Amino acid sequence: MNLILLFEQDFVTGQERVQLRGRRHQHVREIHRATVGEELCVGLAGGRMGRGLITRLDDSVLEMDIQLDTEPPPALPLLLVLALPRPPVLRRTLIAATSMGVKRIVLLHANRVEKSFWGAKVMAEEELRNAAILGLEQAKDTLLPDIQIRDRFKPFVEDELTDLSKGSTALMGHPTSSVPCPRDIKNAVTLAVGPEGGFVPYELEKLEACGFAPIHLGERILRVETVLPALLARLFPLA
Amino acid sequence: MNLILLFEQDFVTGQERVQLRGRRHQHVREIHRATVGEELCVGLAGGRMGRGLITRLDDSVLEMDIQLDTEPPPALPLLLVLALPRPPVLRRTLIAATSMGVKRIVLLHANRVEKSFWGAKVMAEEELRNAAILGLEQAKDTLLPDIQIRDRFKPFVEDELTDLSKGSTALMGHPTSSVPCPRDIKNAVTLAVGPEGGFVPYELEKLEACGFAPIHLGERILRVETVLPALLARLFPLA
Repeated sequence: MNLILLFEQDFVTGQERVQLRGRRHQHVREIHRATVGEELCVGLAGGRMGRGLITRLDDSVLEMDIQLDTEPPPALPLLLVLALPRPPVLRRTLIAATSMGVKRIVLLHANRVEKSFWGAKVMAEEELRNAAILGLEQAKDTLLPDIQIRDRFKPFVEDELTDLSKGSTALMGHPTSSVPCPRDIKNAVTLAVGPEGGFVPYELEKLEACGFAPIHLGERILRVETVLPALLARLFPLA
Repeated sequence: MNLILLFEQDFVTGQERVQLRGRRHQHVREIHRATVGEELCVGLAGGRMGRGLITRLDDSVLEMDIQLDTEPPPALPLLLVLALPRPPVLRRTLIAATSMGVKRIVLLHANRVEKSFWGAKVMAEEELRNAAILGLEQAKDTLLPDIQIRDRFKPFVEDELTDLSKGSTALMGHPTSSVPCPRDIKNAVTLAVGPEGGFVPYELEKLEACGFAPIHLGERILRVETVLPALLARLFPLA
């Protein structure tokens, strides 16, 4: 936790003092091992970042006086269309994506996505949000990503994706493509990442018809949690 | 498991027939749901890749006739010096690194590495090897990485690292560096990646004295399992 993400309901007096209990309180006591008088990096969800001066820290509460004066880091100009991975991979991929600055994610069904994944615990709105919060706390960022769920491939690609990807460079990761992933794209990108085993031919055709160009990162087949950071580091300057 | 990694002891008749039990047998039955007559992608550890024709598959054994005719994909010209991450992160990082073609890894102590990490189960030689096998099976590769353990920072950096990194571009990931990670390096690279919280100033000085240049991938602080694929995708063509 490199930044403690704060929410409106944490504030006890206007915009200046917060009281935290639960996970964040415990983390500061046990991992940071902080003490009264120390300053921690904090940020207001959707707002600025700054410092929290610890005014009280005991068994029951962490209290800080907050100063917010820094804008969060820039977001990636990206829409990520992600075939739903298996639950533990989904969680790690959301953390990784959020930590790298992804702000728009569509979790999409595909032929090789197991139906049972849609009923997994991590798919609950609160769990998706918790994974995103871990990503923001890791990277020092405050802006939660928008995560949309689309459990039918065809209507999403036919009815929504053309509009969503309009004006962007539309790419799909595909290990057997002959085109290497482009470098340092300056404009917006829509990136589709397939499931384990890849999109089936019908899905590839649908995406190509929608303007998506298949690209690869070499012949090795990588896990989604590995290929995504690699693709983002290739596509964007990140500097 | 995109490739089934075979070992000499799996062969029952010369170089042609294997019998598998345990994890690989179970995986082919339950995940691949393969049947007799089908061909699977296989590779001999340290050797070639090819196909295995299933000749028997029942409760007790998976038997295949093996043809090996393809070289494994090229390795990355990289020595990775990795401050030991916490155990679950280490395991995932080894899988990710191996899947991307890393063949030389030194797990190193650093000030911010918790001592207890060195005693973790995953540090057993067999567990490190198992993680690497998962990476090879994922990426379709056969060459196991060499994983060295160095639980003292100073003697390693002073006595070994200069020789190990000789002739290579020596870089260390450091979020507050002012130099962005270079792109598509043509020669060998030695890459040092710090622990959570980073190398301490003394360690940075030691590494700089050893010729390591600090580089960054933007202001966001990323988990090692995320930053490593990103750094590798930036450093190497991967095509």
